[in-house]
Amino acid sequence: MNTYMSGQGAPMNAEQAEKTVEYTPTPRVEIITIGDEILIGQVVDTNSAWIGQELSMAGWQVGRIQSVADEPEEILEALSLALSRAKLVILTGGLGPTRDDRTKSCLTDFFGGQLQTNPAVLSKIENWFAQRGKDPGDANRRQAELPDNAQILSNDLGTAQGMLWERGDCMVVSLPGVPYEMKHLIHDRLLPILSQKVKTPTLLHHTYITCGMVESVIAETIAEWELGLPDNIRLAYLPSPGMVRLRLSASGRPAPELEKLLLSLGNGLRNLLGHHICGMENERLPDAIGAALIRLNATVGLAESCTGGEIARLLTSVAGCSRYFRGGIIAYHNDLKSELLNVPTDVLSSHGAVSAETVAAMASGTLSQLNCDYAVSISGIAGPDGGSADKPVGTVWIGLHGPNTTVQRHYQLGGTRDLIQHRAAMSALYLLWKMLQEDLISKEK
Amino acid sequence: MNTYMSGQGAPMNAEQAEKTVEYTPTPRVEIITIGDEILIGQVVDTNSAWIGQELSMAGWQVGRIQSVADEPEEILEALSLALSRAKLVILTGGLGPTRDDRTKSCLTDFFGGQLQTNPAVLSKIENWFAQRGKDPGDANRRQAELPDNAQILSNDLGTAQGMLWERGDCMVVSLPGVPYEMKHLIHDRLLPILSQKVKTPTLLHHTYITCGMVESVIAETIAEWELGLPDNIRLAYLPSPGMVRLRLSASGRPAPELEKLLLSLGNGLRNLLGHHICGMENERLPDAIGAALIRLNATVGLAESCTGGEIARLLTSVAGCSRYFRGGIIAYHNDLKSELLNVPTDVLSSHGAVSAETVAAMASGTLSQLNCDYAVSISGIAGPDGGSADKPVGTVWIGLHGPNTTVQRHYQLGGTRDLIQHRAAMSALYLLWKMLQEDLISKEK
Repeated sequence: MNTYMSGQGAPMNAEQAEKTVEYTPTPRVEIITIGDEILIGQVVDTNSAWIGQELSMAGWQVGRIQSVADEPEEILEALSLALSRAKLVILTGGLGPTRDDRTKSCLTDFFGGQLQTNPAVLSKIENWFAQRGKDPGDANRRQAELPDNAQILSNDLGTAQGMLWERGDCMVVSLPGVPYEMKHLIHDRLLPILSQKVKTPTLLHHTYITCGMVESVIAETIAEWELGLPDNIRLAYLPSPGMVRLRLSASGRPAPELEKLLLSLGNGLRNLLGHHICGMENERLPDAIGAALIRLNATVGLAESCTGGEIARLLTSVAGCSRYFRGGIIAYHNDLKSELLNVPTDVLSSHGAVSAETVAAMASGTLSQLNCDYAVSISGIAGPDGGSADKPVGTVWIGLHGPNTTVQRHYQLGGTRDLIQHRAAMSALYLLWKMLQEDLISKEK
Repeated sequence: MNTYMSGQGAPMNAEQAEKTVEYTPTPRVEIITIGDEILIGQVVDTNSAWIGQELSMAGWQVGRIQSVADEPEEILEALSLALSRAKLVILTGGLGPTRDDRTKSCLTDFFGGQLQTNPAVLSKIENWFAQRGKDPGDANRRQAELPDNAQILSNDLGTAQGMLWERGDCMVVSLPGVPYEMKHLIHDRLLPILSQKVKTPTLLHHTYITCGMVESVIAETIAEWELGLPDNIRLAYLPSPGMVRLRLSASGRPAPELEKLLLSLGNGLRNLLGHHICGMENERLPDAIGAALIRLNATVGLAESCTGGEIARLLTSVAGCSRYFRGGIIAYHNDLKSELLNVPTDVLSSHGAVSAETVAAMASGTLSQLNCDYAVSISGIAGPDGGSADKPVGTVWIGLHGPNTTVQRHYQLGGTRDLIQHRAAMSALYLLWKMLQEDLISKEK
């Protein structure tokens, strides 16, 4: 029942192309990453996330990721399980020239084949080293020993070749673990083969970035809308400090209809969440702020205290931010709030450094000192010490001074010191973003 | 055969403590991370790497990592497989308040229990929201519905509680997927329980933080020392931008002998690497700098440009930094370098903003403007645009002005914008740390 192919990444012929299998629902792919360094956490497995993204976009459903030790029995157990559930299994890693990499021989055995020297691959490896004036050595020469029952996926970027076996209607692909080699083999070798062999249902994703609302409040706000989602639509909440991404996934056919459906559902979401939606896909809040400032032809400056530079760091993570970012003053000590930002000492003494009055004065001081159009100021207690009954750890005041509006807002934030700092900075950016949206609307009216 | 416990993270009583199981060899733990966002690659699973590291250090062998969809049948299949192979299974994710999180009810069913409202947890959640003047809403109230057959691992940082079930001699732990909540529950709840219940072979680690030297140079410097390491000692290089941690692990018994061996090996390392070792274990460079400034009874101030607040953020990540951190000026625009830091305009025009002369003037301006003992200044080209043949992207000048010494130093850094910013900030902190060490030595002579 097994169909074996050989040859080095040859294009499909007409007969093979006719064998295209059409799957409904989405066929399942599983990923197996091999390597002790992944299990003990010395290396974060980024390969499987990348493969998951690519295969999802190609219409496959990623059903399971397994990370296993570089031991034949572990690899084969994981593979057998994956084969019992999926139509495609992609393994990465364990193909290096060193002795602790045993994937190739164990997979060749499993599929009943034998390793044989592949002359084309051997001469490619020898040429590669010769061009650099080196001898490949035995370890690299052994990379040309390849299974006689697999299709070879030729690797232009390294010595470890990709291998593809078929068993029944399942495919098993083994790829090197080096990220750029793996990506090359998936993009240039595997995906073209898959698109000829398998017709998958379309799967589309739209992701909305929300700020200024926690997951549970979003869930309540959109509960009715969520309950009304069609069966082929799934919604995922992806929270991270200071923001929640909402991902809508649509499956089925045809693609243009799905795209239309996602857009109309997205409009419903926009109506419910309003300016809490501040971007799409992988856009971040600092990017959205930068784009808005450029449209307004305006600049921004900062006065930070408890966040200690975190707001500036977020804004300056955007390439080209010098078009709108003037700079910032980190007035960590109170006397610097007076000396550098002109906060009157009696404001500090009567209201305290963490107060509406102080952040208002910091913001207006920033406008004049940094000569900017928008000023953001922040003062708070990041902890773990320094809190009081009146102003506990997590108390934060944020001030904004724009051309049309002045805002001071109080927050009570939770978490560790790092988190309070990051959440305070994200809250300040969210307030700035909201003010910029309002100014854009009135300007473009 | 099942042993169930209940109660909210209660300390072990004597009877439970007596049940300690001693394992040789190392017992196996498996990790299951739950969430569609991991499978489709929208989120890189960093949790399992972190758990793998912590559990390895606690003497467990990480045998398998599985990532599964948030579907009861997928979760239970993965769990059954893991239970058949391991003594401990840690699941993360799928515990949020929204509809797409189904882990809690499916695990409770699996272990034959029922969800019941836990009054203590409910009042904690209600208090948390009440303190912020908010109502938790139904979704968050449901977070207090907990299995009646699990030990609850109380979560101080969020609404999703950890849960621990026992079946035979296996333990199953379910934790929220939010990284800082997961880390809190493992450090403060799970590891103390494990250390009482399970005696793993002794494994001791000493970790040395090195700065200012890349991995390959360290390897060459300590090559001979490394070759002489005893068989029961392993050395791991853990590089991250701007620093390399060297972890020495000793296995065997008795513990006091191992500790002595590690200390003597560490002395050898210190002799070879000198002031490139700037901390131990989880101490970070900002902590070491803070401790040195306190010993010197001195303060520090910053003038940043290309790093956009990153140095300040690193220094203010230390609790209590107000004892020595005065503040900083982020003079991103050149005119602010003159206006706020008194850099003469002819220095800027004749030498450019990225030059030894400019960072020297920025540092001395910082001393007077911020009234501090040590000043650190930085100016560079973080990219991706703005480079020239003369000063390519990654060109960075760092200036230091201390009571005894003035330094300007040039760096040529590689990587993306984010990485160049972080590496530049770490290089500045390393130079500051070295200067503080020299001043401490001359002061304490």
